[in-house]
Amino acid sequence: MTLIGHIIFLLLLQSSVLLAWQDYKDYQVYELTPRDSSEESLLRKLAREKPQWDFLGPIRWHNESTVRVMLPPEEASSLVSLFDSHQLRYRLLIKDLSPLVQAQRAENLRSKQRLQLPHIDVLAAFYTHAEINAYLDSLPERYPKRAQVKQFGWSYERRPLKVLTISNGDGRRNKPVILIDGTVHAREWISPSMALYIIQQLLDNYEGNQELLQDYDWVIMPVVNADGYEYTHSESRYWRKTRKPTTDPDCVGTDINRNFAHEWGHDAGSSSDPCEDIYRGERPFDQPESQVLRDILLQYSPRLKWYLSLHSYGNYFLLPWGYTNTRFTDSNRYS
Amino acid sequence: MTLIGHIIFLLLLQSSVLLAWQDYKDYQVYELTPRDSSEESLLRKLAREKPQWDFLGPIRWHNESTVRVMLPPEEASSLVSLFDSHQLRYRLLIKDLSPLVQAQRAENLRSKQRLQLPHIDVLAAFYTHAEINAYLDSLPERYPKRAQVKQFGWSYERRPLKVLTISNGDGRRNKPVILIDGTVHAREWISPSMALYIIQQLLDNYEGNQELLQDYDWVIMPVVNADGYEYTHSESRYWRKTRKPTTDPDCVGTDINRNFAHEWGHDAGSSSDPCEDIYRGERPFDQPESQVLRDILLQYSPRLKWYLSLHSYGNYFLLPWGYTNTRFTDSNRYS
Repeated sequence: MTLIGHIIFLLLLQSSVLLAWQDYKDYQVYELTPRDSSEESLLRKLAREKPQWDFLGPIRWHNESTVRVMLPPEEASSLVSLFDSHQLRYRLLIKDLSPLVQAQRAENLRSKQRLQLPHIDVLAAFYTHAEINAYLDSLPERYPKRAQVKQFGWSYERRPLKVLTISNGDGRRNKPVILIDGTVHAREWISPSMALYIIQQLLDNYEGNQELLQDYDWVIMPVVNADGYEYTHSESRYWRKTRKPTTDPDCVGTDINRNFAHEWGHDAGSSSDPCEDIYRGERPFDQPESQVLRDILLQYSPRLKWYLSLHSYGNYFLLPWGYTNTRFTDSNRYS
Repeated sequence: MTLIGHIIFLLLLQSSVLLAWQDYKDYQVYELTPRDSSEESLLRKLAREKPQWDFLGPIRWHNESTVRVMLPPEEASSLVSLFDSHQLRYRLLIKDLSPLVQAQRAENLRSKQRLQLPHIDVLAAFYTHAEINAYLDSLPERYPKRAQVKQFGWSYERRPLKVLTISNGDGRRNKPVILIDGTVHAREWISPSMALYIIQQLLDNYEGNQELLQDYDWVIMPVVNADGYEYTHSESRYWRKTRKPTTDPDCVGTDINRNFAHEWGHDAGSSSDPCEDIYRGERPFDQPESQVLRDILLQYSPRLKWYLSLHSYGNYFLLPWGYTNTRFTDSNRYS
């Protein structure tokens, strides 16, 4: 089929769909209140004689009960004159049914589209990076005023690294920021789940948690180490590092959490051996994932009040520094 | 590709997937409890010297805190002899990691499959007959011991007419039955939603409603008039009857609720005019949908304690009879 042919076909298809759907243009609904059993009998008689008058619900006379009748536009004048001639009590309830029918149809379609958005149950399963990204991408559609997805770069294997920002939608700019990341270490599966749980608490359970968004915006990155995390799902459950090759052809991956520039290599907790799980890389920030995390921190640093990196396991709440046991000089800020 | 070729290809594909997934066969996890800072230092030294020993979590000596180390099978004997020679406190925590890894993987896949089953939100949208059937069909997978779907026939337009039976799964046979149907009248959309709501209350909210299933089985048919109901979604919102042609070429459909054999035609509330919304049909049970409803009632009649047909609207609770105003002789059964 040619392009023109396609367009004509689509136009025909569309108009046939529109024609098929009855729009109830100028259909009216009247409400009657019969006063006694003779009026009830009259209405029953009319219901039999006028198949085009659509009596909604049973016709009964008791306690000011009402009966409604729907009718096509061409019947309206005959109904009114008949009702008037019998001095029935009635009123016009709906002048034109079509906007109501259309509104219900549109609202129903919208509701179903919302229900078809990706949904996840963080307490029921662990999700892959692709599933988490699809879910993040659906949130601005669900919460157009409160959720925004930003991509800050790519993993070594070209997975998009995404960040969700959450506000209360009050339009106040430059609120202080709380930044949370997850899955710096691939095998720590509870970490992205925790990030997703926080997201759902802030979005789905806004009612219960709105004070958390009163004076803060939240920036949440559920999966930093996207390649490693996918690898734990598809290949090796206990993989920890990135998936970028190293100088050692037998050993892959760098520990993102040892790859930052601050005091890089000046610690006992990292290694220069590419085969170790705590390998710090050849140079600071030689991993695309740590670069992305740096760029996010730099972007939000003027507003950043709190940064939490979710790991597992050990029931620790670790404060700076990481490279030394010396106390962070400003540590009373954490007291 | 030939059939043999396909089979070989699939076998290769499967084994490559199986080979790619690391099974952690005979990987072990040991738990250590360092007694003092010198033992902590020794463990830190081992962590550096033995890249194949995977220390899970930070190595710290304080308050009987433990550290766990995971290692491949070939490392086990060297670990044990080293720990013993240093008289460390340790115990074997996991003898073989593989069943745990496999179990988590399998459970995760199962959870996700469950989440991918059709889900509906009866309070958010109205669903088509096809959507309701897909949902009903998913319930035995969710509740294998408590839900069962039976098809009792077809609508005039060959839509499958399905019934859900719900029990508490205690295995007690021949409990009294509560039968509920919905959507005898096509346009009464709240009726299938109400039936689905009852289904979800009995299945998803079993905890809160289990006394309702203690001594009764429930048989629920959300959509009797499948053709008419689909027609209200696709064509004409206020269609009421079936979609089977009548003796009048201009008028389609019969009122299922006037088509039953008991005192058929002996009432003021039905009509012999095929163009009326209360048309009773040419003969009793000349509609496939009323036949199906009859067959369901006959099948369950020895156990049937209560039958409720959901309609809208009017806030009425109608008791027998329907064809006459005479009181049902046994009406004190309903008091």
